[in-house]
Amino acid sequence: MWHELRSNRAMNLRASDIREAFKLCEDPSVISFAGGFPSPASFPQLSNTELANLLASPTALQYGPTEGLSELRDLIATYLVQKDIPTNRNNILITSGSQQGLDLVAKLFINPGDVVFVESPAYVGGLNAFHNYEAKLVGVEIDRHGMVPESLLSKIEKVQKLGLIPKLIYIVPCYQNPTGVTLTLERRQEIINLAKKYNIIIIEDNPYGELYYNNPPPKAIKTLDSDYHVIYLGSFSKILLPGIRVGFLVAHQEIISQLAIAKQGTDLCSGSIGQVFALEWLKKFSLEKHLTDIRVYYKKKKEICLAACEEFLPPNVEYTKPEGGFFIWLTLPKDVDARKLLPISIKEAKVAYVPGGGFFVDQRGENYIRLAFSQVEGDTLVEGMRRLGKVLEQALESDSSFFLQSTSKLNQLSLAK
Amino acid sequence: MWHELRSNRAMNLRASDIREAFKLCEDPSVISFAGGFPSPASFPQLSNTELANLLASPTALQYGPTEGLSELRDLIATYLVQKDIPTNRNNILITSGSQQGLDLVAKLFINPGDVVFVESPAYVGGLNAFHNYEAKLVGVEIDRHGMVPESLLSKIEKVQKLGLIPKLIYIVPCYQNPTGVTLTLERRQEIINLAKKYNIIIIEDNPYGELYYNNPPPKAIKTLDSDYHVIYLGSFSKILLPGIRVGFLVAHQEIISQLAIAKQGTDLCSGSIGQVFALEWLKKFSLEKHLTDIRVYYKKKKEICLAACEEFLPPNVEYTKPEGGFFIWLTLPKDVDARKLLPISIKEAKVAYVPGGGFFVDQRGENYIRLAFSQVEGDTLVEGMRRLGKVLEQALESDSSFFLQSTSKLNQLSLAK
Repeated sequence: MWHELRSNRAMNLRASDIREAFKLCEDPSVISFAGGFPSPASFPQLSNTELANLLASPTALQYGPTEGLSELRDLIATYLVQKDIPTNRNNILITSGSQQGLDLVAKLFINPGDVVFVESPAYVGGLNAFHNYEAKLVGVEIDRHGMVPESLLSKIEKVQKLGLIPKLIYIVPCYQNPTGVTLTLERRQEIINLAKKYNIIIIEDNPYGELYYNNPPPKAIKTLDSDYHVIYLGSFSKILLPGIRVGFLVAHQEIISQLAIAKQGTDLCSGSIGQVFALEWLKKFSLEKHLTDIRVYYKKKKEICLAACEEFLPPNVEYTKPEGGFFIWLTLPKDVDARKLLPISIKEAKVAYVPGGGFFVDQRGENYIRLAFSQVEGDTLVEGMRRLGKVLEQALESDSSFFLQSTSKLNQLSLAK
Repeated sequence: MWHELRSNRAMNLRASDIREAFKLCEDPSVISFAGGFPSPASFPQLSNTELANLLASPTALQYGPTEGLSELRDLIATYLVQKDIPTNRNNILITSGSQQGLDLVAKLFINPGDVVFVESPAYVGGLNAFHNYEAKLVGVEIDRHGMVPESLLSKIEKVQKLGLIPKLIYIVPCYQNPTGVTLTLERRQEIINLAKKYNIIIIEDNPYGELYYNNPPPKAIKTLDSDYHVIYLGSFSKILLPGIRVGFLVAHQEIISQLAIAKQGTDLCSGSIGQVFALEWLKKFSLEKHLTDIRVYYKKKKEICLAACEEFLPPNVEYTKPEGGFFIWLTLPKDVDARKLLPISIKEAKVAYVPGGGFFVDQRGENYIRLAFSQVEGDTLVEGMRRLGKVLEQALESDSSFFLQSTSKLNQLSLAK
């Protein structure tokens, strides 16, 4: 059998157990707060002529350099310098979305059993990337100001006592996925101090930093780094288009060289067509103006969503109030299992969300829900929240056996299908 | 220092020592036979309107499914069924070029020290992909009919005796990179028999199979597989456009599921813009007609190149006569070091090639040269071959100290720059 040929890391691969539930979302009557996708309404609106002009360069058709198009790296460097990240093209690697940045960093740094400190809860894609290289993931407490430095310190000490090797600290510092919280400037400083003291590299994954509703977030952790202790990941997926798969990784030049060699074995180079799109769009249009527009757009949706939380959610359900990004994080009473509730919610109430459990590296988190309001528009958003409120109300009223009964009923339905 | 944080596999990463030499190719007066890129003249010629129409679907802008767009997978399945590979969309994973297929397969199957049998010489990108996961690469002899089954058998037995675990056999069966040779049907059958007998998986990497000059190559090894012993890699990079980065991987459905989970942690999904381009182009235009055109185009170039080999190369330089693809493989007299000759060739004769050493996993191969004629047009091709002939002539006339002297001279030049 082929199974016996698999690598140890393959044994580590986990299929998402909520994937089956999401297949039910294909029903168009389901309102989904599940996928953290940007809204198509936030994409640049281009005429056919404009689109064709953007892609007219023959560069779009051919293989490109592994590090990415030089001109695009220069533009990104200019943008980063404005953000107080001193850099140039040699510090930048274009990646196929920032997910590839996570994969390459894991490839370069992780031996099986090495420790990656992650937010608890953390972005699932980050957990997967590190998990696939057999990292040991250690959750660090977060609160509404982001990762708690005292918790990080105590985890580092614990890990060292166990003789494990701490390698990376993975942080989504702004409008975090899944909670929406933002790391304060003070904590950014404390955390990089810890990284320097213990020689650990921070992976600062910042896809949402530009999507603030009112005031910009604190400066990037990378601005506090004078050498190699921060690898910064940026992405055009949320601020321009995900379909082009253009992300970028900023690091010490020597690290970039090594990551480029790793990338060469991984996909040779990122798609030129996507890179040329990003490059020519940035040259022809104003990113700042576009960002101003989409900040207004998402802010309005956030307000609708928070008002709907206020109106429809049962009073013993808590929720975060993000200052930017796509996500609201619900805390249900401890005995409610959001994972078990999901198929019922989709099947009966026609509303979907992501249960919180998958964002934790330990066995916690079944009483949490991540809502992504980014993709759901106006009235539908309100209607979806009304449905969700009702589902949660019923769940909280019933005793716990409600879930068990309903789940087994659903299983029978699935089997019958 | 950050170096001490690197993984064991990172210690395995090798920068190409000919990369520096290739920087010299940026000089526009250099004629390069180095990069195995398809010619822009072989790309579909599209008007602005056609291009914009191809990309008009909103699907091009958003994230897509990890497995790839269903409609594209269906079209690829139809194409493969015509090639006697019975398949459907569930056997297909869209990859970011077939290089990503190699990376994902290595991720799924390779533990450090596991054995991958490779052609000797083999495609460098394949070697890198496996090497990056700390595979032990074992070279298998090839001749003008491709991999030699007897050599494979003896290597398998040797590996087993050593207690190593054979996992994969990596083959580019048609118009191989770098030699241009094609595996015969008889050998395809013998090799899959060995794979079944010893429970090893064949990676059949076939980017050039459609680029035959006269007669189609033998049927894919995958057509001889009834279960899971062949993973087939295809690509649109050479037959349509590399800039879209669309490849595909064909395997047992269970393997596809596992690879899709691995891909999710690697880049979430391949670029939608590239996939939509491929999909809509395939729907709107005839791939068969396009292939007919580019076969004629490359055949003509091959003829020019072989005629120039005949005319300009010294008589003691041997060369392959491919039946398709992009490559001719030169065998120089044993004492000539093509790697040492390269900087001189570029700097003084203004002609570039890839020295053969990098394609071998052992210390052989310094007296080989790979020529890619795919990208060089008409008169330039002839002129490039004339220059190369002269370089080789001089090298063969001089004694070996010529190289040493010239190289150190060049090093001084580089240091002075």
